[in-house]
Amino acid sequence: MTEKIHWSSVDLAQLDPKFRIHLINSASGYKSANLIGTRSAEGQDNLAVFSSVIHMGSEPAIFGFLLRPDTVPRHTWSNILSTGVYTINHIHLPMVDAAHRTSLKFPQEVSEFEATGLTALDMDGFAAPYAAESQVQMGMNYLNHYTIAENGTILVVGQVAHLYANAQVLATDGFLQLDQVATVTINGLDGYALPELIQRMPYEKL
Amino acid sequence: MTEKIHWSSVDLAQLDPKFRIHLINSASGYKSANLIGTRSAEGQDNLAVFSSVIHMGSEPAIFGFLLRPDTVPRHTWSNILSTGVYTINHIHLPMVDAAHRTSLKFPQEVSEFEATGLTALDMDGFAAPYAAESQVQMGMNYLNHYTIAENGTILVVGQVAHLYANAQVLATDGFLQLDQVATVTINGLDGYALPELIQRMPYEKL
Repeated sequence: MTEKIHWSSVDLAQLDPKFRIHLINSASGYKSANLIGTRSAEGQDNLAVFSSVIHMGSEPAIFGFLLRPDTVPRHTWSNILSTGVYTINHIHLPMVDAAHRTSLKFPQEVSEFEATGLTALDMDGFAAPYAAESQVQMGMNYLNHYTIAENGTILVVGQVAHLYANAQVLATDGFLQLDQVATVTINGLDGYALPELIQRMPYEKL
Repeated sequence: MTEKIHWSSVDLAQLDPKFRIHLINSASGYKSANLIGTRSAEGQDNLAVFSSVIHMGSEPAIFGFLLRPDTVPRHTWSNILSTGVYTINHIHLPMVDAAHRTSLKFPQEVSEFEATGLTALDMDGFAAPYAAESQVQMGMNYLNHYTIAENGTILVVGQVAHLYANAQVLATDGFLQLDQVATVTINGLDGYALPELIQRMPYEKL
């Protein structure tokens, strides 16, 4: 038998806070790796890494992401509230260093695009900037948010206004094979991992 | 320049429904791959694959997952409401076939454990069954749920009562290096992929 370590809820509450943060952030499995792009009402671009973007429904096409008010990159939420739009951009292997550095605290007047070397791109008149290096990009219209009473996090819900995908990843049935463009995934708080497709299963509803 | 395909919201609404489901399910990047275990009030075990488990906070340690009322494996939600507990269990490479088959529609009286060959395991008196084959397992106490007005999905929120991890994956700082036990990730609706850790970054808040 494999040796397992067991933490009860009491054990978890007594752990060193940083140890607990790494442990709990790792415990649900792999997370999506995206950059969220916004523009302030004054035209200042912002770009921030998020591991919490989730699929919420396909018709209408809606996605959510979680904001932690105390730790969130500061300008993403205020920009979304003032402009109503944002972009979601995949992080690929060559972008990992730059993407993660967007989580450093830059002054309001510094664009994380310029600070990290990523390229802000406007497409089809949308009012938020995309990361030009991303091979899967979405322009999102803010719809709603839900405040989670248990810890004060905010689930932000938006609908896809524009979806762009590198033609190389698109299968004939609509599936995007993400390993064809080296989209990465996040393990825990600070681990970046590169997946390889093993297999697609016969269609069953997940 | 890489050729990109562009879908506007109008284009998306006009797509073939199955094509759209595959496309939109792939567009947010990789998803977590977990089995949720429940037990009915009558003692019948249930196990279902979910790609929507998300980290919501580390203190208290809470996780969420999304239920789609019209497509969800039918018994998970009713069991959670009647017992208040459930388990979250990582899916590893050797378990992919069995895990995905839990999404087939079995009659109420059939346990997905027995139907798929996975092993139900009781630990520490917890009232929901774990998947014995999983190397990272959590016993969860149901806390709350949020109904998403935009499409009727339900975000179920729970707190960790027990966490078990294979000693092999635990780093000294609490990080669980998931590729050490071949935890998989889900691409789209039906793609299973195996990640390999590229690097951990210096600590910054995500």
